[in-house]
Amino acid sequence: MSIEVDYLFPAGTDAQKQAEMIAIGQTAGTWTAKYAHKEESIRQYLGEVVSIDYLESGSIVSRIRFPEHNVENDISSLLTMIFGKYSMAGTAKVVGVHLPKNYGLRPKFGITGIREKLGIWDRPLVMSIFKPALGLSASDHAAILEEVAEAGLDLIKDEELLGDLASAPTLERLKACLEVLERQQAKTGKAMLYAVNVTGRADLLLDKARLLVKNGANALLLNVLTYGFSVLEAIAADPEIQVPIFAHPAFAGALCGSPDFGLSYSVVLGVLLAHAGADAVLYPASYGNLQLKADQEKEIKEILHSRNVFPVPSAGLRPAIVPQVIKDYGLDVILNAGTGIMDHLSGPGEGVKAFLQAVQSSLNS
Amino acid sequence: MSIEVDYLFPAGTDAQKQAEMIAIGQTAGTWTAKYAHKEESIRQYLGEVVSIDYLESGSIVSRIRFPEHNVENDISSLLTMIFGKYSMAGTAKVVGVHLPKNYGLRPKFGITGIREKLGIWDRPLVMSIFKPALGLSASDHAAILEEVAEAGLDLIKDEELLGDLASAPTLERLKACLEVLERQQAKTGKAMLYAVNVTGRADLLLDKARLLVKNGANALLLNVLTYGFSVLEAIAADPEIQVPIFAHPAFAGALCGSPDFGLSYSVVLGVLLAHAGADAVLYPASYGNLQLKADQEKEIKEILHSRNVFPVPSAGLRPAIVPQVIKDYGLDVILNAGTGIMDHLSGPGEGVKAFLQAVQSSLNS
Repeated sequence: MSIEVDYLFPAGTDAQKQAEMIAIGQTAGTWTAKYAHKEESIRQYLGEVVSIDYLESGSIVSRIRFPEHNVENDISSLLTMIFGKYSMAGTAKVVGVHLPKNYGLRPKFGITGIREKLGIWDRPLVMSIFKPALGLSASDHAAILEEVAEAGLDLIKDEELLGDLASAPTLERLKACLEVLERQQAKTGKAMLYAVNVTGRADLLLDKARLLVKNGANALLLNVLTYGFSVLEAIAADPEIQVPIFAHPAFAGALCGSPDFGLSYSVVLGVLLAHAGADAVLYPASYGNLQLKADQEKEIKEILHSRNVFPVPSAGLRPAIVPQVIKDYGLDVILNAGTGIMDHLSGPGEGVKAFLQAVQSSLNS
Repeated sequence: MSIEVDYLFPAGTDAQKQAEMIAIGQTAGTWTAKYAHKEESIRQYLGEVVSIDYLESGSIVSRIRFPEHNVENDISSLLTMIFGKYSMAGTAKVVGVHLPKNYGLRPKFGITGIREKLGIWDRPLVMSIFKPALGLSASDHAAILEEVAEAGLDLIKDEELLGDLASAPTLERLKACLEVLERQQAKTGKAMLYAVNVTGRADLLLDKARLLVKNGANALLLNVLTYGFSVLEAIAADPEIQVPIFAHPAFAGALCGSPDFGLSYSVVLGVLLAHAGADAVLYPASYGNLQLKADQEKEIKEILHSRNVFPVPSAGLRPAIVPQVIKDYGLDVILNAGTGIMDHLSGPGEGVKAFLQAVQSSLNS
């Protein structure tokens, strides 16, 4: 099997030359006559230029094919190959990555697994975020949770900015919140997932993820792009970690924001996360005020759906948008509203109800 | 202590508004009247706008101060804070990060430690890279090493593209090469470092790094930007790993290439790596054909030198440039030449000698 990657070059680029630089320079490299006897062995690692397309805009897209055996079935070695040194060579953006289906990891839970944990099959899920982001104690978190759980929220997550801080250590937050969740579930029978933010140096982070799960965590949140794809893969592949992992897009704009450099949002938040073991992927919805455009969001959604990964459009969601989101996504979407729920004028509980009602009336109409 | 970060905005940006969005949105966020009683606790996590400077070019640089207690003394949580969600908010580039001196890690070895291992104090060091990148067996590596070690090379590293492949598994490569190094050292008394590329899922990578060191590896190479800063920090902090770590810049262009988005090269390859435990940092020299400019290279060099991290300008180095490099860097530089040594017309050994002679005559003149 092979890996195919699309590179976007600005108008006027000698795309044939650049494409060959990638196909050779990012694989076996060049060799001298001295290695003539190894030529057969070396050649099987070379990439090749598949196509060069001149777009109407003047930009050029070139597709390169890489041998799959050059890399290690993970995202980190893939990135080193497709855009390692070459990322520093000039103006180019990776706009498509086409991986074999069995490349990397699939979600352990994904859409079906998360639905199973919640026992909800017939509607979009509603998620919120603890706010304010910093400065609350573990018991403040529990008090907020009490209110939104009572109102019927499906999922909640830590703010991605909230690490393992002295003011509310992660394990304390988890314990305080689990007590609330257990009490609620005993009362109403309804399960709820709390994606607790796991942070730290890679070795400590992996230990902490195991510790949190051992202490009852039923979901994890990871800032994949600041900690590393290799860390997500380690958690996702860990047999002790039998809970869904929510991938947060923090830092994605540093990689994807430029029209000419880096990688496209659909590659990073779609393809790469869907092959790295994420069960759900958050990203700024085009309905909101951040950078993603509607076509980028659609691409991400389709890639995630195709691998059973739950899309979680976020940032700026409010009940009035829910019908449009359901029209665009169908039922398999997690509606994630932070301030949209937490800053509701009549309190977070009413914020939750407003979203759940918007979902119900949308489905009934 | 606090952390100060400089953001570059394009001409015409309402920089005051954006700066406030960062200072608030990337820290405590907003809160409602309901949290009036927690205000004192929340406020201590807020960032603040330090300055807004209008450059002659029309661009604007704003400096934001963040409380150090918002983050976990590592690079990943730092990146989440300074450019997590905000990276997706619009056009902005992080062009300066000012950390407390004791933030993060210092190199375990760095310039002085690497010099001590090699016993060379009075000149720049010369490094090369195994080429071709892929398709060689472990014994091919050993044969190349024999030739360059004999010629007096100081350091060699794996190609960053070379993972733990079936054709030349990492441990086999290491063992074959160590045999050569030991034989050479017994013969000439001269030590040589071989930075072996450590790859894989975070958990396996950490195990592999320990295994390689246990088997005699005397240096490691890590593609920090594709595996994650948290992985570098884990290796650097590991008490079993008492060898210098060489940080490769693969993928840096995806973060740093754009003039308007991402982070500057001097932040990523300078500040962040110098506070994450790297002992030596490779980057494309401005003398070569990749993207870095002379002033960016100078900034990186100064940051690395200030924390005892060895700068390793690479890509396109040849003996004729050596006097200029020494003029720019002084003695504390590792001259890294891949094809410049390996593709020498009379063989790699002569390639090494040409560099060593260029260094000597440069120092004598």
